[in-house]
Amino acid sequence: MSTASKVLAELIDALRCLPGVGAKSAQRMAFHLLERDRDGGRRLAAALTAAMERIGHCRQCRTFSEEPVCALCAGAARDRHVLCVVESPSDLAAIEQATGYRGLYFVLLGRLSPLDGLGPDELGMDLLRRRLAEGEVQELIVATNPTVEGEATAHYLAQLARDAGVRATRLAHGVPLGGELEFIDRSTLAHAFGGRQALD
Amino acid sequence: MSTASKVLAELIDALRCLPGVGAKSAQRMAFHLLERDRDGGRRLAAALTAAMERIGHCRQCRTFSEEPVCALCAGAARDRHVLCVVESPSDLAAIEQATGYRGLYFVLLGRLSPLDGLGPDELGMDLLRRRLAEGEVQELIVATNPTVEGEATAHYLAQLARDAGVRATRLAHGVPLGGELEFIDRSTLAHAFGGRQALD
Repeated sequence: MSTASKVLAELIDALRCLPGVGAKSAQRMAFHLLERDRDGGRRLAAALTAAMERIGHCRQCRTFSEEPVCALCAGAARDRHVLCVVESPSDLAAIEQATGYRGLYFVLLGRLSPLDGLGPDELGMDLLRRRLAEGEVQELIVATNPTVEGEATAHYLAQLARDAGVRATRLAHGVPLGGELEFIDRSTLAHAFGGRQALD
Repeated sequence: MSTASKVLAELIDALRCLPGVGAKSAQRMAFHLLERDRDGGRRLAAALTAAMERIGHCRQCRTFSEEPVCALCAGAARDRHVLCVVESPSDLAAIEQATGYRGLYFVLLGRLSPLDGLGPDELGMDLLRRRLAEGEVQELIVATNPTVEGEATAHYLAQLARDAGVRATRLAHGVPLGGELEFIDRSTLAHAFGGRQALD
């Protein structure tokens, strides 16, 4: 894009590293910040620097944290007998926002995908195995995504739990709320039918 | 939004100053940068800081520039006899990208809007009047937006040009390329009809 200013061109280019931001949006964002919200721009720069430098991973659950152990793992209020395994910190955030879950988490930071070089070692399965061996966890909730790779990861996790003598559960498949049976894909409907529950 | 990390929560909040970015997108952006593109995040922070601190306005045309006079105004390659007046730097960028215009620009940084406290003084009309009085400019192209306030601004600019004895022109109204007559609003169609041109 041709602008009169090199610094501006660099800002527009740098904004394109954000997901879902193309050339047009990047230009709009840059002009917006310069014209109307320079303070916001400065605050964003500071927040980015702080986050990129200071946020690492929690030693216990591998989610994002600027402390060695994240607030969730360190907090006394959570139930330490239940451990929910998710693929990414955004899945953790989704479960935290939607459900009343009060247990702890373990974040894989990926899913089993040998073609991408993601095996059990990269996903911290050793850490999880040691955690289960400690005996504190009584239920392992497997909340990987219902994709092919997520299902493979779920099977691996189930085996891990079985070896440690821990009960493993997984999120229910079924009809989403507000959906219409007529328009739901066949495999989801089959799962919902097979997993039907008593009405009492 | 509840995350385990305060620094992360601050980043997500700061990202919301970008136009078109809500809570969900901000969270997705933050996780994307932390998981996959920390270098991009650092580069964005540096570009933001540089832009917010160093970019001011060109002394001649008022567009964004880190130099006292922007590259367009300082360059020898542009035709100094034609001056195109636009409302904002993004309009300037749009004209630069779409047309082969080789003249100079003048950026109002707004449009006449007394209710918002934007009068001739805020739009640099004095600067423009002096520029026209210098006698170098032979044509003033009025490229304000075809809104009510843009039209009012265009009338003001036309008067300014008339006072200085400079020819004023404006962008043609008409049928957009690829549009269908059937679906075009009535006033645009009336403009296009009234402004019809010879086919030779």
